[in-house]
Amino acid sequence: MKMNRIYFTVGPTELFPEIKKILIDAIDNKIFSLSHRSREFTDINKHTEKELKKLLNIPEDFYVFYVGSATEAMERIIQNLVEKKSCHFVNGYFAERFYNIAEQLKKKPYLIKAKYGEGFDFDKIKIPADSELICLTQNETSTGVALNMQDIYKIKEKNPGKIVAVDVVTSVPFVRIDFKKIDCAFFSVQKGFGMPPGLGVIIIRKKCIEKTKYLKERNCNIGSFHNFISLAENAEKNQTAVTPNIPGIYLLGKVCELLNKKGIEKIRKETIVKAEMMYDAFPDSGLGTGKEIRPFVQDKNLRSFTTPVFNVNNGSDVIAGKMKKKGFVISRGYRDFKDSQIRIGNFPMHKISDIKRLLEALKSI
Amino acid sequence: MKMNRIYFTVGPTELFPEIKKILIDAIDNKIFSLSHRSREFTDINKHTEKELKKLLNIPEDFYVFYVGSATEAMERIIQNLVEKKSCHFVNGYFAERFYNIAEQLKKKPYLIKAKYGEGFDFDKIKIPADSELICLTQNETSTGVALNMQDIYKIKEKNPGKIVAVDVVTSVPFVRIDFKKIDCAFFSVQKGFGMPPGLGVIIIRKKCIEKTKYLKERNCNIGSFHNFISLAENAEKNQTAVTPNIPGIYLLGKVCELLNKKGIEKIRKETIVKAEMMYDAFPDSGLGTGKEIRPFVQDKNLRSFTTPVFNVNNGSDVIAGKMKKKGFVISRGYRDFKDSQIRIGNFPMHKISDIKRLLEALKSI
Repeated sequence: MKMNRIYFTVGPTELFPEIKKILIDAIDNKIFSLSHRSREFTDINKHTEKELKKLLNIPEDFYVFYVGSATEAMERIIQNLVEKKSCHFVNGYFAERFYNIAEQLKKKPYLIKAKYGEGFDFDKIKIPADSELICLTQNETSTGVALNMQDIYKIKEKNPGKIVAVDVVTSVPFVRIDFKKIDCAFFSVQKGFGMPPGLGVIIIRKKCIEKTKYLKERNCNIGSFHNFISLAENAEKNQTAVTPNIPGIYLLGKVCELLNKKGIEKIRKETIVKAEMMYDAFPDSGLGTGKEIRPFVQDKNLRSFTTPVFNVNNGSDVIAGKMKKKGFVISRGYRDFKDSQIRIGNFPMHKISDIKRLLEALKSI
Repeated sequence: MKMNRIYFTVGPTELFPEIKKILIDAIDNKIFSLSHRSREFTDINKHTEKELKKLLNIPEDFYVFYVGSATEAMERIIQNLVEKKSCHFVNGYFAERFYNIAEQLKKKPYLIKAKYGEGFDFDKIKIPADSELICLTQNETSTGVALNMQDIYKIKEKNPGKIVAVDVVTSVPFVRIDFKKIDCAFFSVQKGFGMPPGLGVIIIRKKCIEKTKYLKERNCNIGSFHNFISLAENAEKNQTAVTPNIPGIYLLGKVCELLNKKGIEKIRKETIVKAEMMYDAFPDSGLGTGKEIRPFVQDKNLRSFTTPVFNVNNGSDVIAGKMKKKGFVISRGYRDFKDSQIRIGNFPMHKISDIKRLLEALKSI
């Protein structure tokens, strides 16, 4: 029996409908019994990297590393690229997590904080000179603020000697990234790639591994099996350090293949159309108009296309509960915003017609 | 089209045939779209823990933690239970990995080494008094040596103040573990549980978390999201620290349910029968008899039931290649033993009739 319910959550979210057949074929072909040192798995790894690099326009001088989650990506990035000081732009809970991880790993992170729901005054911000790594959350899933990639590129331009790492967990593959202008990006697959959770992906400029080697020489703790030297050595051979989430790597290649066939520019255009449908359906209220649902992020230029966040008047639990009964699952607000906000995932597997139905349901309650 | 090939590899290995239907049902029911904070996922987590605890007879005062691999389990165990010194029994490459991880994490591990293919003279060994953690590899997949659990219990008896952690990666669920007599065990699911890879499981006495708390107070680096304090806090709520490998946790519960229905004692008996069939088919050669295939481990009491290892005369590549053509995939030797040995997985999804066919094929080449 199939469930007639569609997930518009910000992740885990609705799977691509093709996932089922891909998994069945993989099991029939015993893909998940392969050794990670076999030629067959090496070929799968190569295929996934090729399709992902094509989809996201990743240059040759970048590695693709696989870890268990986007949070593990944050941990490994700090552990392998920072001796003492990272610098964190924090305007939401996921950026905060990145900062906290640096503290937990006994680094001395700098904190550049903005109000949650807002962006940064990039022109005025000075990055401390001894920052080794600059961390930005391009799409803050907890607040629905999406930073402009141009602002991020400028930070790199002004700080060419520092490594710039960007959290694009809930904005890939939609967000257009010029990898010549950043050093590292990471995401997990249960958002815009419409896959089951359990795989984190780090895309990193090969040159950054020199920093890891420097840390190793200085006897820093760079971790063990997932340190970047080990990950890079294995990536050079299209392998992984240990037996990885083979279903995840296999599915990612197949999903990227699907998206490449559809065309990334078409996906981007559709994402914008769907986001505009949402923001148009629930416009700003202005003061005192008493609108039930309205965008949380005030600056229209910062509103996320992939994870719009709305303030609600009458408790997010009531709205989410009513929507679920109608067959639509949406996310409630994050942490402090839990009761006062709803968040809606707008990813490539969500069709324009799905969004139409979602918005009609949301308006009717 | 289904592949007519059966995997007798030591892991990843043949999947339980039921995996396909379980995955299809899960996708139809949108299990992999669930939030890891949802009540539905909490129920799944609870179910998996209940079935696993029943299968392996795990007491109430133990946590079940999920990580990405058995290697991550090793890393987190060292990171969270050792301030300075762990003590490692090393008689193969996976025990060596555990030791190396302690070094990589800047601890000062003690090394108790035996020849690969042999066990330890436990009565004569003295554990250094300042060892905080004692690490043993119960079933060494690289050599096919299985330590006797009674010897491991005696170590704990003699060292009641030290934490004893046991690698049972390729021996669960076959190996009978008395959790009252050890503190921690870990494994991954692509071996005896016949699942796709991507999930590591740590079973740990709740009291051990006091050591992690002590380390935290001493400002030690216990890692970030997967530190044991965070894992324990979430486990108390039947949750996980971050979005986990939900397919892995879900499948593990369903596989344990299957195994519990079949009965663990029946599985253990069958495993012994199948192992004896293998060792009987290829007995010791004695000197100069020129037998092509013979057990690597000389001490019969130490021969693994789940991962028998055999020396071969004419190159493991030739044998493995010929077997593959006949539809049987076996593992070659590990590292230094690559060319001179074959390794055969004997796990619960391998039927007695499968082993018969395998042995006939192996004898005919």
